[in-house]
Amino acid sequence: MAALPSLAFAGIGLMGLPMCQRLLAAGYPLTVWNRNPEKCAPLVAAGARRVTTPAQLCEHADVVMVCLANTEVVREVVFAADGVASGAKGGQLLVDFSSLEPTATREMAAQLVHQCGMGWLDAPVSGGVAGAEAGSLAIMVGGELADLERVRGALLSVGQRVTHMGPVGAGQVTKACNQMIVACNALVIAEVVALAERSGVDARLLAEALGGGFADSRPLQILAPQMAESRFEPVKWHVRTLLKDLDSAVKFSREQGSATPISGLAAQLMRLHGGQGFLEKDPATLIHLYREPGSKG
Amino acid sequence: MAALPSLAFAGIGLMGLPMCQRLLAAGYPLTVWNRNPEKCAPLVAAGARRVTTPAQLCEHADVVMVCLANTEVVREVVFAADGVASGAKGGQLLVDFSSLEPTATREMAAQLVHQCGMGWLDAPVSGGVAGAEAGSLAIMVGGELADLERVRGALLSVGQRVTHMGPVGAGQVTKACNQMIVACNALVIAEVVALAERSGVDARLLAEALGGGFADSRPLQILAPQMAESRFEPVKWHVRTLLKDLDSAVKFSREQGSATPISGLAAQLMRLHGGQGFLEKDPATLIHLYREPGSKG
Repeated sequence: MAALPSLAFAGIGLMGLPMCQRLLAAGYPLTVWNRNPEKCAPLVAAGARRVTTPAQLCEHADVVMVCLANTEVVREVVFAADGVASGAKGGQLLVDFSSLEPTATREMAAQLVHQCGMGWLDAPVSGGVAGAEAGSLAIMVGGELADLERVRGALLSVGQRVTHMGPVGAGQVTKACNQMIVACNALVIAEVVALAERSGVDARLLAEALGGGFADSRPLQILAPQMAESRFEPVKWHVRTLLKDLDSAVKFSREQGSATPISGLAAQLMRLHGGQGFLEKDPATLIHLYREPGSKG
Repeated sequence: MAALPSLAFAGIGLMGLPMCQRLLAAGYPLTVWNRNPEKCAPLVAAGARRVTTPAQLCEHADVVMVCLANTEVVREVVFAADGVASGAKGGQLLVDFSSLEPTATREMAAQLVHQCGMGWLDAPVSGGVAGAEAGSLAIMVGGELADLERVRGALLSVGQRVTHMGPVGAGQVTKACNQMIVACNALVIAEVVALAERSGVDARLLAEALGGGFADSRPLQILAPQMAESRFEPVKWHVRTLLKDLDSAVKFSREQGSATPISGLAAQLMRLHGGQGFLEKDPATLIHLYREPGSKG
């Protein structure tokens, strides 16, 4: 049995923390960095090494994983003066779990290999914090298959499904497809809950009545009851995230010459809702777009 | 153990035939009528009694079930000169499995009870021919709860989930909600398959990569591979049906004062696609809206 490869990880947030905890539990030697170093404390206590710049991650591991908020943050952590690229050597590999714009991913991957010979796998995840904690994430990978094989074991420590979708950027395209489906579905669910309410149907029963059928989905089971009961707390995910992902997907589709009439309208409706003060609220609040003011909740 | 009530059934089509076969298998005495009487032959062979007018159905059973193509056909079978209403007595019950406009259902139900004292349950189903054959339909019921209890056992012979959604028409509203979600999702799936294809992603892997996550659904698992492989035969369901259901749902929403921006756009896109010659084709052909002509299939 070969020794497990050493790993490094930048971005110890809501997703990164449980992912690192699972990597440590699986026995991987792990070096971590986070802008706010206090977030690393539970990992250091569990055996991780902490460094003070992203560049130093490359001294301790051949595979540097990152899980960060957006394209700008990834660009800075990788390409700033003390970024990953400044410490990288040829043959090392970067694995990006963040959800980024596919075009930016392709540009940064090309820049990284040109600048220091480090490879790039985009590996955005689906499943949220609960999936990260349970190790049940779905991971959509773009990049060289040989690079994926180097880290497949580690990816299967944090997720239960790893799918190689194509060259660099293909993982991000797949994540964009995921978010288009989820966000559009959330908006249609708001339409049907409001329609049910206005026409004398007990909207609390919709999820049960449609369960197991062609209209069923996890968003239906989660959102429809929340909407029908005006239950908007605790906030599990954010309108802001769906809006960012829709805007990014629609922009990328335009660049590819691919029409997205439904997703385009969904982005506008999501922006309308966000602009009414709901950016940091749960997507269940989308029902407010369709309900008469004061009718409920 | 009480004897099973006698049932009658009008409309021996793709759905009605297997539903009647399941009722006979469950031991219900069954009288049947169909415009084209030949369709009744397999049921007569299995023990059903055949009559020659809808009115005669009321002579042999207190519960008359109908499963017909649309509002106009139901109106004729119930209210024509030799229709169900002309033979009905007070206390009898009509169970309508068809998918109709909720407003028309409410009007016909009021007319039927006024004219002859016969009650009305709307009980549209979801699950298609395969669900009817397997007895796994979901049945969404509107009407008096006491009327539902009279036939719950029979409904559970043809479906596995029976949900009482509210007063007469509530079943049809729920079915409209179901179809809005399914049709909008089908259109978004076409958008993402096309986007994946145009950006170098293996679209055949989308269903697998997104399986089990928030974007997953039965339409995703069925349509995405069909679209990616340009596999449009055999035709399992029709663009025409989704268009009819969307138009009906959008019209009803307008009557209720409920906005449906996504479903409204979906209806227009579905009409655009149908108008290009795809009305009788499988919804998997929706990918043609988004693909360059001649690029595939």
